[in-house]
Amino acid sequence: MLWTVYLSGEIHTDWREQIQSAAEEANLPVEFVSPVTHHESSDAAGDVLGKPENNFWRDHQSAKVNAIRIQTYIEQCDIAVIRFGDKYKQWNAAFDAGYCAALGTPYITLHDEDIVHPLKEVDAAAMAWAQTPAQVVEVLKYVTTA
Amino acid sequence: MLWTVYLSGEIHTDWREQIQSAAEEANLPVEFVSPVTHHESSDAAGDVLGKPENNFWRDHQSAKVNAIRIQTYIEQCDIAVIRFGDKYKQWNAAFDAGYCAALGTPYITLHDEDIVHPLKEVDAAAMAWAQTPAQVVEVLKYVTTA
Amino acid sequence: MLWTVYLSGEIHTDWREQIQSAAEEANLPVEFVSPVTHHESSDAAGDVLGKPENNFWRDHQSAKVNAIRIQTYIEQCDIAVIRFGDKYKQWNAAFDAGYCAALGTPYITLHDEDIVHPLKEVDAAAMAWAQTPAQVVEVLKYVTTA
Amino acid sequence: MLWTVYLSGEIHTDWREQIQSAAEEANLPVEFVSPVTHHESSDAAGDVLGKPENNFWRDHQSAKVNAIRIQTYIEQCDIAVIRFGDKYKQWNAAFDAGYCAALGTPYITLHDEDIVHPLKEVDAAAMAWAQTPAQVVEVLKYVTTA
Amino acid sequence: MLWTVYLSGEIHTDWREQIQSAAEEANLPVEFVSPVTHHESSDAAGDVLGKPENNFWRDHQSAKVNAIRIQTYIEQCDIAVIRFGDKYKQWNAAFDAGYCAALGTPYITLHDEDIVHPLKEVDAAAMAWAQTPAQVVEVLKYVTTA
Amino acid sequence: MLWTVYLSGEIHTDWREQIQSAAEEANLPVEFVSPVTHHESSDAAGDVLGKPENNFWRDHQSAKVNAIRIQTYIEQCDIAVIRFGDKYKQWNAAFDAGYCAALGTPYITLHDEDIVHPLKEVDAAAMAWAQTPAQVVEVLKYVTTA
Amino acid sequence: MLWTVYLSGEIHTDWREQIQSAAEEANLPVEFVSPVTHHESSDAAGDVLGKPENNFWRDHQSAKVNAIRIQTYIEQCDIAVIRFGDKYKQWNAAFDAGYCAALGTPYITLHDEDIVHPLKEVDAAAMAWAQTPAQVVEVLKYVTTA
Amino acid sequence: MLWTVYLSGEIHTDWREQIQSAAEEANLPVEFVSPVTHHESSDAAGDVLGKPENNFWRDHQSAKVNAIRIQTYIEQCDIAVIRFGDKYKQWNAAFDAGYCAALGTPYITLHDEDIVHPLKEVDAAAMAWAQTPAQVVEVLKYVTTA
Repeated sequence: MLWTVYLSGEIHTDWREQIQSAAEEANLPVEFVSPVTHHESSDAAGDVLGKPENNFWRDHQSAKVNAIRIQTYIEQCDIAVIRFGDKYKQWNAAFDAGYCAALGTPYITLHDEDIVHPLKEVDAAAMAWAQTPAQVVEVLKYVTTA
Repeated sequence: MLWTVYLSGEIHTDWREQIQSAAEEANLPVEFVSPVTHHESSDAAGDVLGKPENNFWRDHQSAKVNAIRIQTYIEQCDIAVIRFGDKYKQWNAAFDAGYCAALGTPYITLHDEDIVHPLKEVDAAAMAWAQTPAQVVEVLKYVTTA
Repeated sequence: MLWTVYLSGEIHTDWREQIQSAAEEANLPVEFVSPVTHHESSDAAGDVLGKPENNFWRDHQSAKVNAIRIQTYIEQCDIAVIRFGDKYKQWNAAFDAGYCAALGTPYITLHDEDIVHPLKEVDAAAMAWAQTPAQVVEVLKYVTTA
Repeated sequence: MLWTVYLSGEIHTDWREQIQSAAEEANLPVEFVSPVTHHESSDAAGDVLGKPENNFWRDHQSAKVNAIRIQTYIEQCDIAVIRFGDKYKQWNAAFDAGYCAALGTPYITLHDEDIVHPLKEVDAAAMAWAQTPAQVVEVLKYVTTA
Repeated sequence: MLWTVYLSGEIHTDWREQIQSAAEEANLPVEFVSPVTHHESSDAAGDVLGKPENNFWRDHQSAKVNAIRIQTYIEQCDIAVIRFGDKYKQWNAAFDAGYCAALGTPYITLHDEDIVHPLKEVDAAAMAWAQTPAQVVEVLKYVTTA
Repeated sequence: MLWTVYLSGEIHTDWREQIQSAAEEANLPVEFVSPVTHHESSDAAGDVLGKPENNFWRDHQSAKVNAIRIQTYIEQCDIAVIRFGDKYKQWNAAFDAGYCAALGTPYITLHDEDIVHPLKEVDAAAMAWAQTPAQVVEVLKYVTTA
Repeated sequence: MLWTVYLSGEIHTDWREQIQSAAEEANLPVEFVSPVTHHESSDAAGDVLGKPENNFWRDHQSAKVNAIRIQTYIEQCDIAVIRFGDKYKQWNAAFDAGYCAALGTPYITLHDEDIVHPLKEVDAAAMAWAQTPAQVVEVLKYVTTA
Repeated sequence: MLWTVYLSGEIHTDWREQIQSAAEEANLPVEFVSPVTHHESSDAAGDVLGKPENNFWRDHQSAKVNAIRIQTYIEQCDIAVIRFGDKYKQWNAAFDAGYCAALGTPYITLHDEDIVHPLKEVDAAAMAWAQTPAQVVEVLKYVTTA
């Protein structure tokens, strides 16, 4: 079995690359999928359809185009990893976690200890809380190859 | 038909009371349900089962007890209203929104204009974005009685 | 058992009233629900949230507010009656029919013979095709009380 | 991942070919499926089973045979593109949109600006509204390869 | 809890009445629902919509009208009792059993011993096989009140 | 797309072989699956687990072993063909039809005209009624390759 | 909202009565449902249908009759409480827990500390682990009335 | 079709190996998946995330990591084999059986005759009860190749 792992959340650090290269090195039977992680491209995802002058509707239109990809990947993945960094609101990451929870898709959170309290609802529905990408890879290794 | 409306999110202002009293005054065929909104009680929800010394597990245990109520209400409601205030992380509110989205339950977001951009994914899956409790009540009035 | 019947489609003739009064007269164990059928109110359903200048987004916003009501009623009804008149596009009626079909909710179409051919896909998934409100009432009477 | 895209609606212009050839040229990881688009064949789909004299039942029988294909493709596709041209009723296209909406399958509408108002319910449940096949291809490119 | 019990199958003996009166006498918290059991009415269920000359389509139209009732009751019942008599094909009874099995709705079969072999697939998915109405009532009594 | 077609029902004539060889000749993108069609093997399917003396339980045990195969194939197939011959009760065929109907899996019935009336409920939920294997193959050809 | 709570597991101590009377005293908006808890009646549940000589089939027949009640209650309850005592295998209790987990129904386990290790999979999918009936009542009180 | 078979339960005897090697020898179109069966590894599955001092939470954390694998395999398998040995509580095996039952996934139990009575609920929802690995292989052979 090839496991599909969706990597949700923070886009300003290289946590995805760390997980992917370590998984590749370990030869894990895993393929990774992600939302579009280039900030400007993501914000402009809908502009090709005509760029609304109003900010709300521009965001709305782009977010719906992005949702085609995100929703499809979440519904098809076997496991999600959901990363919360130390900056920004990252409500989309929590939204993805809620989406996984409702679908019954197991997910692993990845965040530092200092945000344990505000993330308690998100962690409570998770199957694991990791603090480093290396821990995530260890869990993936155990789950897929032990 | 009596509509069940779940009020999710911010617990430090009186937006719930505003909506509920206006809905009552307008005689709307609506009943409201909410998570436990008393902060300290919510944090201590699981302590009766034995209070873990470790903060992560105490939060984990309490969040799971709270989830019995929250998950039940979300799965039974017809509409959710999801409030983001100007303070705190409020990842649980975004989590509830994702949960609703996956279930196909319509929800209305309630937040100020200055957080439109970070909430774009949450708003894109919403049926309406309101900026005031009064607008939420107008929408509920239209939907349930027009 | 009280049957909930959703009346979808044309809003410019009195077919709803005909069905409802005949059902009432016959004392059928049926309650009827409908979308908002006042044209101007429906088009303005979202304006309370701020009226977008752009027509597409104004329509979009109003249609989503209307969808809170429509989707809820379709998902809760036992039977839908879907009416196609001789004017207008009425794509929303066909949309509701497709929605019912996917949910497995039985629906009855109500339309004249001259549009049998363009409605063949919609009729093929229906449980009955009626040409008059009186026939609809006869079917409801048989189904709920025979 | 190979994305399956269902092309629903208008059969009298070459919009399907435009999308398919542009997608192929761009090497998108996409496969396209469609209903039978030859008008006469589609109308006669059930005749092999015995051709009913009555027009309604002939249409009924053919539409059900076509539905075997259409329903299967809609339930298996990842994305649908739903095209409304400037002629004909095209209720089947709106029916397909409603079916997608109920399943939670993301779809993109493709139509001119002058029919924005009658399509507002169909567009409100869509993830994007495009006016040209080229825009559809841009969205597919972004979603599947960005 | 009030249990809804659907009584499917044979319409030419009084097994329904036997079960209903015994259940009533025993004051069981049970309500019974049934298809239309008047043979001629059932065959003519769709005639109000216009009676097709062709027998297949007349049966088709009536069977679909009956299905509005049958499908609704099967999907809402808690338990089904499915009766096979010693005459007629009774494929509709076996059809209802398969429908229940797919939904996960528990059903009890009611038939004589001499048709155990041809009914083995239907019985294998049942929760109980009874030979008399009195046994069915005993099971209902145990299940709902023990 | 490779279509999976489940062939249910009568086991005493060669209708399966006729369909399969014609489909192969026409190079249809179809694979066929069937229940075990060897009568004695099917009746003895559970005997390896210990043969119950009581006929009911022997049948029960074998039918459940057969159901592992049948249920899996029905749930995975894209289309079912359900054959009623002129002999035997064939309640299992009608059971399979009901199972398909509840799952929303399209099926084609295959039977002679003289049993149209007792099969009306089964036919009403079918997508097509064929009288010969050749017609079934024509429908499969149209659906999968037109 | 009246909450339905299913009480599963051990039948040889009075834990159900303790929970029920404490809940009643506290006026909780809760109704309790249970499997048949009289051991001999439960073992003989199917005997009315004819008592098989073989022990396996007698147990099988009775267990299926009991399952009509158990499955219905589990599928309708909002919360389950699953009790493991210090005697007997109680595989049915663990079976009910797995059933709840697959349905997404929240459940609370009730057992002593000395069986924490063998119950770790059952506890991991639970929303809470209680050691006393009083703790269960406290959790129910908090969830339904806080 | 390649059948996926999940092997759940007892980890202290070589029943898995017996089934797998016999299936391989018989060239069955079957692939087997299992939970992690190395006892110590399984108990320590979550330790990489930080080993909680408290036994309950250490077990909890490890069980959740194991559940990522188990839940995924159960939801993807076509058939489960669930083994109860003569030692230990094996509540996880009964939990897996309940999970399968709720999903409608067919499963075969494998256990000695002396525990027929305490396993009656688990067996009642099973498709077969085998006493030896050889019998399981016979059933798999029949189901997948007869």
